[in-house]
Amino acid sequence: MTKIKIGIAALALLCGARLYADALPPAAPVPADNPQSEAKIALGKALFFDPRLSIDGTVSCNSCHNVMASGTDNRSVSVGVGGQKGGRSAPTVWNAAFLSAQFWDGRAATLEDQAKGPILNPIEMGMTSQAAVISRLKGLPGYVEQFSAVFGSKDALSYDNLARAIASYERTLITPNSAYDRYEKGDKKALSREAREGLELVTKLGCTGCHNGPAFAGPALPAGQGFYQKFPTYADSPYISKYQLDADKGRANVTGKDEDQHMWRVPTWRNVALTAPYFHNGSVENLAEAVRVMASTQLNLRLQDSQVDAIVAFLNSLTGEFPAQTMPHLPDSTNRSIVDIH
Amino acid sequence: MTKIKIGIAALALLCGARLYADALPPAAPVPADNPQSEAKIALGKALFFDPRLSIDGTVSCNSCHNVMASGTDNRSVSVGVGGQKGGRSAPTVWNAAFLSAQFWDGRAATLEDQAKGPILNPIEMGMTSQAAVISRLKGLPGYVEQFSAVFGSKDALSYDNLARAIASYERTLITPNSAYDRYEKGDKKALSREAREGLELVTKLGCTGCHNGPAFAGPALPAGQGFYQKFPTYADSPYISKYQLDADKGRANVTGKDEDQHMWRVPTWRNVALTAPYFHNGSVENLAEAVRVMASTQLNLRLQDSQVDAIVAFLNSLTGEFPAQTMPHLPDSTNRSIVDIH
Repeated sequence: MTKIKIGIAALALLCGARLYADALPPAAPVPADNPQSEAKIALGKALFFDPRLSIDGTVSCNSCHNVMASGTDNRSVSVGVGGQKGGRSAPTVWNAAFLSAQFWDGRAATLEDQAKGPILNPIEMGMTSQAAVISRLKGLPGYVEQFSAVFGSKDALSYDNLARAIASYERTLITPNSAYDRYEKGDKKALSREAREGLELVTKLGCTGCHNGPAFAGPALPAGQGFYQKFPTYADSPYISKYQLDADKGRANVTGKDEDQHMWRVPTWRNVALTAPYFHNGSVENLAEAVRVMASTQLNLRLQDSQVDAIVAFLNSLTGEFPAQTMPHLPDSTNRSIVDIH
Repeated sequence: MTKIKIGIAALALLCGARLYADALPPAAPVPADNPQSEAKIALGKALFFDPRLSIDGTVSCNSCHNVMASGTDNRSVSVGVGGQKGGRSAPTVWNAAFLSAQFWDGRAATLEDQAKGPILNPIEMGMTSQAAVISRLKGLPGYVEQFSAVFGSKDALSYDNLARAIASYERTLITPNSAYDRYEKGDKKALSREAREGLELVTKLGCTGCHNGPAFAGPALPAGQGFYQKFPTYADSPYISKYQLDADKGRANVTGKDEDQHMWRVPTWRNVALTAPYFHNGSVENLAEAVRVMASTQLNLRLQDSQVDAIVAFLNSLTGEFPAQTMPHLPDSTNRSIVDIH
């Protein structure tokens, strides 16, 4: 038995019989310094959908984290301004509020920190500085008024407040009442027999040693304390070269530490059936193959097809209900354009 | 007096004292072969917002015709898949249902015809064929069900029906109750003195000889019978070379006829204050400059600054109310991605 397997077994014992997760809570944790309010959420929603936060007016947060769908773009890697491609696959924004660290490598402690990144990334939204973002928003009276109403009049329109508003909106992006949640709450008919077999398998095989907690992404931890695991673990898995799973050093790129090589934040299983393609590089096209890859690289297991099907059936039971939302109407850009038009 | 001016004067006489336009009707004309229904509009809305109608999943109708804002992207020319740039500026989709021909050159008679174009345009959404679009949608059970419910079961999921649904949604995109509309309906305080001066000017100078009708884009005509005018008209206007206004031959590219050189569908003034930059090539950055250009190229006039300001104030009175909308939830792509992911 390898160290990893012993670790997983020990964790299973610690957690007792309930290695898998509770139903998704109806609300996400809210930091003390950024309380929710209707007006702030509305502002954050407008900002989230506003392509004018990108240099040429073509990319919004929603472009890669499509909240009308899975919260992703269903691409291997996303496309930013000028058709540039990023290096990693966009994680879903749905239920991201339940994660204790953001980005694949956990380099942002909070949703607020995360929101500040892509806007200034030259291959994502391409704004040249925080000041350039604020200057642009100051040219839109609707935003000036909204920031002032939400954050008070003095220096209300700041990059920190922009991030606060976007994070507040994202904290509302929760998909309750999946088949699994209904099952967990007592509706034993909510899961098919195959899905129940899948649930038993992910528990027995050890998948839920890492994929546990409300988002099936690890235990609830203080903000910034991400739940990381090595991926891939078993170096001789044939999938590693097939899907170039070890080309990216993961968290080591952030910390510079050898022990963080190939360490990744455990991704959520919530709505995982809708977020293909899979893994940090989006190299695996479908969920069944992703299950085979994980069994091989993390557990040194080769699953039978019926086991894969059962696990996929269970993972499909984690697709939640997407709440109805109204569209924002973005503040008017009057008599002139405010983006780089050429 | 030139032929053009005589023509405008004659048209003014024909229209009597009301050379400018009526208030915007609350509903747009609906073709007999595509009646509106709630289910069809909902389907069309989902399609309009669905980036999976583009080859790589990055561009939806809404990318260039942003209905959360002005119905445009506020760019000179739009950006399609792979960062490719188009040749003309995206017209607004708001109130497009009142136009009797679509595209700058009127090459589509109806909204239905228009909707079919960009999806297959290699520099816009880049799908390779109608069959490829239908094949992709057939991979999304939610669409299969919706098309069947809306259009009946046999061959419901067709490219023609896709266009019908999108057009039905677009016919709901109407912005009523602008300051001008309220003024026209009797609220004489709805327009500022400056805006009223602007209204008088656009009538007196002859602008409304072309910019009349419910959308200020010409008279209501049968579908396909676009209302075209030559632009630029006065060949010695200094703005022509400055903004390369004669580089594009306009409607002649469609018809191949010499008499259609530089003929363009008259664009709407509705919400024109929000749709910068201006003209078919999006070369003019702000509305005041666009007014100067039009006066010079179409009327051989050089306006005083106060006249420009008054006309801009009037044009600002044509910004309507944007109705609240719910977001669509796009049909699930389950266990695999359906776009070209790399």
